[in-house]
Amino acid sequence: MKKKSIMDYETVALDDDKHALVIIDQTKLPYKMEMLELTRQKDIWNAIYLLQVRGAPAIGVAAAIGIYLAAREIKADTWEEFYPQFTKAKEYLDSARPTAVNLSWALNRMDEVCRANRDKSHDELIRILHDEAAEIRDEDVRVCKSIGEYGLSLVKPGDGLLTHCNAGKLATVKYGTATAPMYLGQERGYNFRIYVDETRPLLQGARLTAFELQESGLDVTLICDNMSAAVMKNRWVNAVFVGCDRVAANGDTANKIGTSVVAAVAKRYHVPVYVCAPTSTIDRNAPTGADIQIEQRSAEEVTEMWYKERMAPEGVKVFNPCFDVTDHDLISGIITEYGIARAPYETSFQEIFAKKEAAAVIQSGDFAASEG
Amino acid sequence: MKKKSIMDYETVALDDDKHALVIIDQTKLPYKMEMLELTRQKDIWNAIYLLQVRGAPAIGVAAAIGIYLAAREIKADTWEEFYPQFTKAKEYLDSARPTAVNLSWALNRMDEVCRANRDKSHDELIRILHDEAAEIRDEDVRVCKSIGEYGLSLVKPGDGLLTHCNAGKLATVKYGTATAPMYLGQERGYNFRIYVDETRPLLQGARLTAFELQESGLDVTLICDNMSAAVMKNRWVNAVFVGCDRVAANGDTANKIGTSVVAAVAKRYHVPVYVCAPTSTIDRNAPTGADIQIEQRSAEEVTEMWYKERMAPEGVKVFNPCFDVTDHDLISGIITEYGIARAPYETSFQEIFAKKEAAAVIQSGDFAASEG
Repeated sequence: MKKKSIMDYETVALDDDKHALVIIDQTKLPYKMEMLELTRQKDIWNAIYLLQVRGAPAIGVAAAIGIYLAAREIKADTWEEFYPQFTKAKEYLDSARPTAVNLSWALNRMDEVCRANRDKSHDELIRILHDEAAEIRDEDVRVCKSIGEYGLSLVKPGDGLLTHCNAGKLATVKYGTATAPMYLGQERGYNFRIYVDETRPLLQGARLTAFELQESGLDVTLICDNMSAAVMKNRWVNAVFVGCDRVAANGDTANKIGTSVVAAVAKRYHVPVYVCAPTSTIDRNAPTGADIQIEQRSAEEVTEMWYKERMAPEGVKVFNPCFDVTDHDLISGIITEYGIARAPYETSFQEIFAKKEAAAVIQSGDFAASEG
Repeated sequence: MKKKSIMDYETVALDDDKHALVIIDQTKLPYKMEMLELTRQKDIWNAIYLLQVRGAPAIGVAAAIGIYLAAREIKADTWEEFYPQFTKAKEYLDSARPTAVNLSWALNRMDEVCRANRDKSHDELIRILHDEAAEIRDEDVRVCKSIGEYGLSLVKPGDGLLTHCNAGKLATVKYGTATAPMYLGQERGYNFRIYVDETRPLLQGARLTAFELQESGLDVTLICDNMSAAVMKNRWVNAVFVGCDRVAANGDTANKIGTSVVAAVAKRYHVPVYVCAPTSTIDRNAPTGADIQIEQRSAEEVTEMWYKERMAPEGVKVFNPCFDVTDHDLISGIITEYGIARAPYETSFQEIFAKKEAAAVIQSGDFAASEG
């Protein structure tokens, strides 16, 4: 019997029989593939807090499933009894990672659906919440898969691809964003050679991306962040795919620290850089990258975390930004679920969002109604 | 009483009273400043082998002092009795790091002086070997200091400087090459702000450069290798100074892996990159960087060395080159002890070497003789 691999599991899933949130415990990686079945709210809160589940889309899905499971447990005869308990459960989950935008976003979306259906029976409301959580999960899969298809159109079989940090399966339900073209390509026999930056200081590339790609049977080579020029000079890389945390209206992209280093090196060696960005990460209220706030993190991550002993002199100053901004002119294309945006990005994003709105109209049925 | 700092010590020195090679034990850094006094050949061999002393120039000086100390101990009445023992001692030291060019170079130079003075008395010969070892040490100090002066002419007080790996005091007797402008600037109140790449995978930047600069009272900030774009985008860096392992005739430079990443990023942000290169590292027999062989090292350095447990999946492929080649067009100037070479480097190196030869003629007295 074939040993089950990471591709047989989803990063975040709902088990309807056990009424459990099922996740891959990412704190055990790359040592052990361990699934957690979580039913208690405290355990779900902990899983988010302890980064057992991480990555913006995965956190959003976990929260949606979490609040659905909480709603199921609520004993109440009336909406007035039900809703305060629902709100309390929502606020509790929301407190697990206060700055994670997707966490609040998913919980608020579940809250809206809940309030919109206050006149439904308890069973009916629970079913609706179940379906909304399932929809949030399905949307993530659809978005990643669509990004993967567009990404795949930019490369050819046998290409060398480079990625930075983890915008992989482990950050979403499955496929990932930056890894989606890799996994879809694999399904179609593309035989990519994939280079993964280890991504200091938290080593998400070494611990997570190298792990998930290797587990999935892809041809993966790990490098230190300072080796990108060496591999590109050898002409081993045909394209760079990275994820993003936030994209400004002009295409400037905030992503894991080091992304703009890779982009500058890629520019030097004429390698295209593609940012994989669900439209939800495009912030048209931020005119440029200068409008994106960069989180600073502790010195210890650089000087002692993971190490047997501290690797830098006591008391040394450390600059440890979590993200950097890659200027739009270093980016060859921004791949969304509605197509590939190209410079000038303001115009291109307008077209992307027009497509998104048209799709929403069609999906909601408003279009049919207005035609009727 | 002021606590002694690293600047009160030389990385490698001869103690004439104790007849000992005195070194800073670099395997104890950045935890502890510990000096070793070595008198036995076995201990000197071990110090080179175990990297207690490291850095090409420092190894050369240690070997010269080592073979002088060995010669002192030889009991022999005639040259025929003396020289085989000297040769044996030389071959023994040379075996400590077979690929270290400066090790052989220093030992061969001592050997030549030894053979040239075979007709001298034993005491006289030992004195001559002592002076030659001292001259090798003095030359290193002069070369570094001269590079420092030329480097200092390229920057101004208050500048931000960035360096990669350790081309510092700890790789030479004192001053270092890339750090020489920093130390000379400090003596003259330049108040530099210095950014140090940690330099994965062996962390020479974090462990050694950050240590020696901080110990010396300079304003140092440690960053991960993937943060160079972030600091340069903030306009915190006015110049990059790096060392080199070998420079080709056209100015292409092999140096610690990641140097060409820093150079590509610096180009992007219009920050000049200066390579600090004693003329001994300029290999005019290598036409371009493509003629320089790059050493590949083990996967374990990336996946588990220094760490509490391995940080990448078992069996993952790793590309771990020790050096990369920075193309000459990314380099703003190559600073030698005889001046600053600029593109086109072939011509500029000719002038540098002409100055070197002229200086040698003056020093040797041949010039004076021919004038007489």
